[in-house]
Amino acid sequence: MSLAQSVLAGDRLSLARLLTRVENDTPEGRAGLDELFAHTGKAHLIGVTGSPGTGKSSLVNQLALHFRKQEKRVAIVAVDPSSPFSGGAVLGDRVRMRDLAGDAGIFIRSMATRGSLGGLAQATAGMVQVLDAAGFQVILIETVGAGQAEVDIARLAHTTLVVEVPGLGDDIQAIKAGILEIADILVVNKADRPGADSTERALKSMLELAHPAARIFLHHGGPPSPPIFEAQNGGEKVEWIPPIRRTVATDGSGLAELLEAIQAHVEHLQRSGDWARRERTRLEVEFDLLVQQMLMARFRAGHSEDRLEQMLDAIQERRFSPREALDKLMEENR
Amino acid sequence: MSLAQSVLAGDRLSLARLLTRVENDTPEGRAGLDELFAHTGKAHLIGVTGSPGTGKSSLVNQLALHFRKQEKRVAIVAVDPSSPFSGGAVLGDRVRMRDLAGDAGIFIRSMATRGSLGGLAQATAGMVQVLDAAGFQVILIETVGAGQAEVDIARLAHTTLVVEVPGLGDDIQAIKAGILEIADILVVNKADRPGADSTERALKSMLELAHPAARIFLHHGGPPSPPIFEAQNGGEKVEWIPPIRRTVATDGSGLAELLEAIQAHVEHLQRSGDWARRERTRLEVEFDLLVQQMLMARFRAGHSEDRLEQMLDAIQERRFSPREALDKLMEENR
Repeated sequence: MSLAQSVLAGDRLSLARLLTRVENDTPEGRAGLDELFAHTGKAHLIGVTGSPGTGKSSLVNQLALHFRKQEKRVAIVAVDPSSPFSGGAVLGDRVRMRDLAGDAGIFIRSMATRGSLGGLAQATAGMVQVLDAAGFQVILIETVGAGQAEVDIARLAHTTLVVEVPGLGDDIQAIKAGILEIADILVVNKADRPGADSTERALKSMLELAHPAARIFLHHGGPPSPPIFEAQNGGEKVEWIPPIRRTVATDGSGLAELLEAIQAHVEHLQRSGDWARRERTRLEVEFDLLVQQMLMARFRAGHSEDRLEQMLDAIQERRFSPREALDKLMEENR
Repeated sequence: MSLAQSVLAGDRLSLARLLTRVENDTPEGRAGLDELFAHTGKAHLIGVTGSPGTGKSSLVNQLALHFRKQEKRVAIVAVDPSSPFSGGAVLGDRVRMRDLAGDAGIFIRSMATRGSLGGLAQATAGMVQVLDAAGFQVILIETVGAGQAEVDIARLAHTTLVVEVPGLGDDIQAIKAGILEIADILVVNKADRPGADSTERALKSMLELAHPAARIFLHHGGPPSPPIFEAQNGGEKVEWIPPIRRTVATDGSGLAELLEAIQAHVEHLQRSGDWARRERTRLEVEFDLLVQQMLMARFRAGHSEDRLEQMLDAIQERRFSPREALDKLMEENR
């Protein structure tokens, strides 16, 4: 029985092993991905991102517990920064997550960030596929920090939650604009702290800039129920306007409302056809990366290391431009 | 006379035109880069990065003015986020920069971020090469925000300044660890604000984690003069420990000391051989990107759009794994 078959049969140890091989991009890991690919495409992938200190990990724990109450099998993939500077806090988060570890319907996996950003997104994508094939119906992908890594990893998810905390005030710039753009649902966590109102106001203003249709909804009383966030555009197209939900992850307040918003987003994705479209985009990106890797490997195999170094010398000495050097190498390869 | 020749002859309009073509990656832009490549490699590239609100742009303006006083020709490339949310602030910065625009020894260019991150770093690299060939001796590359984009763009620079502001306190996590790791010089700007001491302390603690050799220097009184920051390791290797400099860009305080630190870093780079090593790394990355682009273009040319879509359909329907689909396409191409 292959490792992939053991994973399909529900063996947790094999699952952990295959995930390690996929994370390290070994030949066995790649073979496992090939074998499992036909069994993927069933899970709901939920990305959870936000700056350090927003309580993302506690929120992810709470979401996992709630999905477990719905009898769903849940996996958590936590992408941690490898930097020594923030290691302590992240480790603390992970320790808290062990509250959940006694439950067989849940699987928790941390991964460190790598030097190569493309590598990280690709490794995460592979691990999510393994968990999907292994029958986890909800996969929570938690990313720490803010930046392109989050955007790349969010592309993996059907639903992306961006977590903010009070204390933001009117300083709109403090929210990374790129991060807001990937949000399907905005969460104001630690909402029992002072300043939750002004944080929500700031987020609303930013949403109005991004979604003109949001204005009519956001200015009429409190947060409407999720379906209202789908603005009708010209009677045809339906736009999803990210709802804002307040939570206190440490005591579970607001979790029920957040879960409702997530469910509403799933229904929106399915009704609008975005579920399939997002998956298509994800598969395209993944396929492109694979093509790139293979072509680069072939190119390197077609030229000796020495010859490539010689050409780099010639570039550094300004004897050839990079493009001229490439043209020369391609001629030699014919 | 080609556009590149006009640029070499000092024509500013041609320079602006070629930069646009390079930014848009047109065939004319690429030809211009080839033609100018032999004239590159002379400028000192200085990256300036930090979160919004740190006063980077004012600092860049001040640095430009000071380099002008040294009779150096200076170019500024400001990489702006394209997001509508922060457009206003960035525009404001650029307007302030026009203070400098009457001076023929200075050239200022803003560029918007693109969807593709690789594309942005590559476009910036190309534009920097054009300015280098055009005879600008100092090129300041300003990046807004924090994340992988900054890391990629910092790889372009010989000297990278990371700008922080007071208000950080002891919240070490607020500094993006990845950003600190690329810093050659740390700047505490707006140093007249309360909290400058604790910001500097926090930065020192982080430096000590990253550079054990820094401890002996950082704990003996105030900031030593720049050469002391080069810690002797085993009598042979010399490690550059990022100095911390306080500035108030709006009134020019601390600029002289910052310029000294920059000059010390240049001397360190030249003495240690890192100047050539950094350039080599930059050229390698650039060459790899070029190879990737060319190979992908060839791959796409070798298969019809329809065939590629068919294969993506097959992947989405789980008939083939991405790797199986790629193997099939490669066979067809032979």
